[in-house]
Amino acid sequence: MEPVGIDAVEVWTGKLKLDLPETFAPQKGEDPDKYRKGIGLVGSSFPDLYEDIVTMGANAAKRLMDRKGLTPDDIGRIDVATESAFDNSKPVSTYIAGCLEQYFDGEFRHANKGERKFACVAGTQSIDDAYNWIRAGRNRGRAALVIATDTALYARGDPGEATQGAGAVAMLIDEDPDLVEISNEQGYGSMDETDFLKPNQQFPSVDGKRSMQVYLSRMREAVEDFESVAWDMHPDDFAYVPFHTPFPGMVRKAALLGYRHMSRDTEIEDALADEIGRQPREDDYASREAYEDAIREYMDDLKETEQYQAWYDRTIEPTLNISRQVGNWYTGSVHIARIAALQYAAEEDRDLAGEKLLVGSYGSGAQAEIHAETVQPNWEQEIAQLNVDAQLQARYDLSYSEYEHVHDSHNHEKGAVDIDDFTEPSDEFVFTGWGRMNERQYEYVE
Amino acid sequence: MEPVGIDAVEVWTGKLKLDLPETFAPQKGEDPDKYRKGIGLVGSSFPDLYEDIVTMGANAAKRLMDRKGLTPDDIGRIDVATESAFDNSKPVSTYIAGCLEQYFDGEFRHANKGERKFACVAGTQSIDDAYNWIRAGRNRGRAALVIATDTALYARGDPGEATQGAGAVAMLIDEDPDLVEISNEQGYGSMDETDFLKPNQQFPSVDGKRSMQVYLSRMREAVEDFESVAWDMHPDDFAYVPFHTPFPGMVRKAALLGYRHMSRDTEIEDALADEIGRQPREDDYASREAYEDAIREYMDDLKETEQYQAWYDRTIEPTLNISRQVGNWYTGSVHIARIAALQYAAEEDRDLAGEKLLVGSYGSGAQAEIHAETVQPNWEQEIAQLNVDAQLQARYDLSYSEYEHVHDSHNHEKGAVDIDDFTEPSDEFVFTGWGRMNERQYEYVE
Repeated sequence: MEPVGIDAVEVWTGKLKLDLPETFAPQKGEDPDKYRKGIGLVGSSFPDLYEDIVTMGANAAKRLMDRKGLTPDDIGRIDVATESAFDNSKPVSTYIAGCLEQYFDGEFRHANKGERKFACVAGTQSIDDAYNWIRAGRNRGRAALVIATDTALYARGDPGEATQGAGAVAMLIDEDPDLVEISNEQGYGSMDETDFLKPNQQFPSVDGKRSMQVYLSRMREAVEDFESVAWDMHPDDFAYVPFHTPFPGMVRKAALLGYRHMSRDTEIEDALADEIGRQPREDDYASREAYEDAIREYMDDLKETEQYQAWYDRTIEPTLNISRQVGNWYTGSVHIARIAALQYAAEEDRDLAGEKLLVGSYGSGAQAEIHAETVQPNWEQEIAQLNVDAQLQARYDLSYSEYEHVHDSHNHEKGAVDIDDFTEPSDEFVFTGWGRMNERQYEYVE
Repeated sequence: MEPVGIDAVEVWTGKLKLDLPETFAPQKGEDPDKYRKGIGLVGSSFPDLYEDIVTMGANAAKRLMDRKGLTPDDIGRIDVATESAFDNSKPVSTYIAGCLEQYFDGEFRHANKGERKFACVAGTQSIDDAYNWIRAGRNRGRAALVIATDTALYARGDPGEATQGAGAVAMLIDEDPDLVEISNEQGYGSMDETDFLKPNQQFPSVDGKRSMQVYLSRMREAVEDFESVAWDMHPDDFAYVPFHTPFPGMVRKAALLGYRHMSRDTEIEDALADEIGRQPREDDYASREAYEDAIREYMDDLKETEQYQAWYDRTIEPTLNISRQVGNWYTGSVHIARIAALQYAAEEDRDLAGEKLLVGSYGSGAQAEIHAETVQPNWEQEIAQLNVDAQLQARYDLSYSEYEHVHDSHNHEKGAVDIDDFTEPSDEFVFTGWGRMNERQYEYVE
């Protein structure tokens, strides 16, 4: 089978930054280490006043198309994944295509455009749809543009306010990709859950504790489902394991669960037996509760072992390098985790071609998806083109009162605030205001 | 290639009816014939107070699964298409899966659930995703459940108030289908348009005239795109041509355009030449405008020919039999057009196996999709199972003031109204109220 996967990626961060330990924590009367160590975040990205999910997505896509020398005719499909949509009927992909057609010669007149919604997992679902479209032989030699774009805002004072973020990831899905091949095998864990939702609301209703439990349960089920069609995984099968990262502290829990699962019945479990005992087996316990207590105890011990910590530092920690600085990008989050890992490998001069990633996506409500990716020979040239660090460094550092205005300006119920843009747009798409049918309007500024 | 397509369908209409010529027109001081003849609608369906897009979708899916003897394990994918979503993050498919799990033994724990949005075309896009998933070999022998469900309401007094509707269509997409095989070829016409949208609104902003032009332009482009990968179509290639039907009057225009396009350079054009001349060719005209004027004139004449009217009566009119009685179901509309045609063929004892349908889907914003379908040998047994007529007959016939209350009760900004349900639910899912996180809750009532 011809490989199909991600040929190119681009990132666009919201141009504003809130420093969580230095600016946010003091206002909340909190220890800055709650952010640096507990949650694992030092900054959140926010859109400037002229930015939104359309401009961020269009700007990421423009960079990608420019860099790869693509025209609209090369694209047969544009799918946007978001849970920040501002229109209940017209998909964000049409607004983004309209932007790109202002800049590129040609039109996306025969491209299938769409929009997917399932909390944070819809970006990966859109990649899957594009992958399947190519495998079905319907792409006529054209590639798919998948754009994950979100402005993750919570109501002021909500615990989630500490994990906000905004940005977009554009990905080109194609045959014979430069970056990673995607496995045909995939695993799902999916149940109707009321952990995080936005019923006729811009800002979410969240049950934080439940949401963390649901993340871990669905992820475990997705891993098991993946193994049922792929192979019994071993922790050393993967160079990196990018997870959906609402905040790095969540990934620490998921990684431990994944390692415990994958090391069961391996030489790792044997080697650790003297130090922390063997993994509990359900058959040895009178009840599911007793078994789960034993598992929790084993995991507490496992976390402290040198073996686990070395694996975590090697396989997980590098995936958090961007998230830590930008917060939760919802649909884009797992995709910046992948990019962070590949950037780290490039900096370390690691020869990654042929190595595997295990990608763990998740959306509240709730569904996890697991698939594997194989890094392609051209990965390093591709990843070297990104300017993520420069974008992050260039962000305007908000004061707390500026942050409050920015939050208001992106609140649909408050709308325009009487403050100036913080940054100067150039060579990019910007939001210019509302039209006569209440449509959002955009322009390219040089 | 093993055929992939629609194995089974089920329909669930909102249980209330507004009689447009008899109840609505008099209140508006309008001639009832505006509805019967011009728009082409005699009734609109509305949800009863305990109905919504989740209950209608779940009830259609339950009927389908019951009838086909399916359990949740047989389903690998549940996609909901809607432009009436009430949650910006959690997809409607999770609510529907939660309902079905109350009734069926087993869970959809390893099924990929999702939600697609692109005005009225998202139902067809979801079928395409399911088709591609099967063609990609990722379905593990399981089928996909695609549910198109909408409550199409307009603001009171909006011209669109005459074309409202509510209902759901559930479709099982599978290998070796009983109903229709779907062509691998498909054509798209798609451009960023501001004709109909819902920017942070439940009820649409509509530019009615523009929307009709855009429908026709995108449909023409989709037809041309389809022909570029399929074949030069002839009007007699198809037993029926189901179009997206916002109201039957729109389809009359689309059908004429399609017939004109398909009869060009055929013996039909030759035979009509004496009566109405040959079709205008763009090269013979000094400007695009002059050419378009000539085309319009030709189409005015074409519409009056016996040949065209016979084709229309045979190929198009039967597709409108359900729409005429229920109004616009948005994402479900083109799919009830297909069902209406197949029901008509069954009533006429027509042997349809092996014959082709041309399906023209459309969503404002705007995108048209064209594909062909081949009717399968078991189509008649499958279509005979439907109880659409019984559902339509059983609807409660609203008075005008009752209609006003029903509209208010489904208006998110007004919410619950102090009136009783009009019908008695039995053996179905019903909406029971809001939970502590503002989630909508459902129960199965016997």
